[in-house]
Amino acid sequence: MVRYFEDIEIGETHEHGSYDVTEEEIIEFAEQYDPQPFHTDPEAAKETSFGGLAASGWHTAAMCMRLLVEAMDDAEWASQGARGVDELRWIRPVRPGDSISAEYEVVEKRDGDRPGIGEVDSRLTGYRDGDEAVISWIGLGMVEKRDGN
Amino acid sequence: MVRYFEDIEIGETHEHGSYDVTEEEIIEFAEQYDPQPFHTDPEAAKETSFGGLAASGWHTAAMCMRLLVEAMDDAEWASQGARGVDELRWIRPVRPGDSISAEYEVVEKRDGDRPGIGEVDSRLTGYRDGDEAVISWIGLGMVEKRDGN
Repeated sequence: MVRYFEDIEIGETHEHGSYDVTEEEIIEFAEQYDPQPFHTDPEAAKETSFGGLAASGWHTAAMCMRLLVEAMDDAEWASQGARGVDELRWIRPVRPGDSISAEYEVVEKRDGDRPGIGEVDSRLTGYRDGDEAVISWIGLGMVEKRDGN
Repeated sequence: MVRYFEDIEIGETHEHGSYDVTEEEIIEFAEQYDPQPFHTDPEAAKETSFGGLAASGWHTAAMCMRLLVEAMDDAEWASQGARGVDELRWIRPVRPGDSISAEYEVVEKRDGDRPGIGEVDSRLTGYRDGDEAVISWIGLGMVEKRDGN
């Protein structure tokens, strides 16, 4: 059953599955979008403050977005995308071999300015191997209203 | 000549090149990281509030990151990555055929807590076809100090 803006409650939490991080994907993403040596070159990365190859922070965000989309699908949200993100923080590096999980919690909702769409803010937290936080942000989501007004 | 934390001035701006957006890349990125119909399916996207296929906001951020890395290379910043991002906003949809450019401006700098590394905050703005803003954020960058303390 589709859940609209009116059905969503502050404090509800959702999660879905996990995402396995590979060296190949870290390098492929970074060569296209974030070509810095600590993201593209395992040897050169050892000489940087990362101390070894680490995923681009934007790659970590994208992996968590994948989990977030799947969690919103499970929760049957009538999602209409997001206006933006506040307080995005890369807390720890993500490494080859890590398994990433993510959960989100609704922290605020309001009618907003757009007809038919309400604003739902959620805190996303991504974890490495189940318990170490690696990333967090507050997503400024938009969810369809049931009555369309 | 490498430019360290001490060399960077509030108000300096940098930009580099542009990034051509294709339908193929929009769909490929979204199928991996953000599989929502307005990012993966040109036909289904017409029925959504986007009115047609649009790049994932994380894809737009990644494309701008590519331009930012190139601009930091040109400016010879001794970059050590970033702690996070504040106030990320997706201002307008990015479409197949758009050409994305980006500029960043230093808005604040401070010594920070980590030895040898200073904090440099920059506002990134991404444009479509040169003048329409599509995304902005404040990056919380880290830059090596010359004296290592």
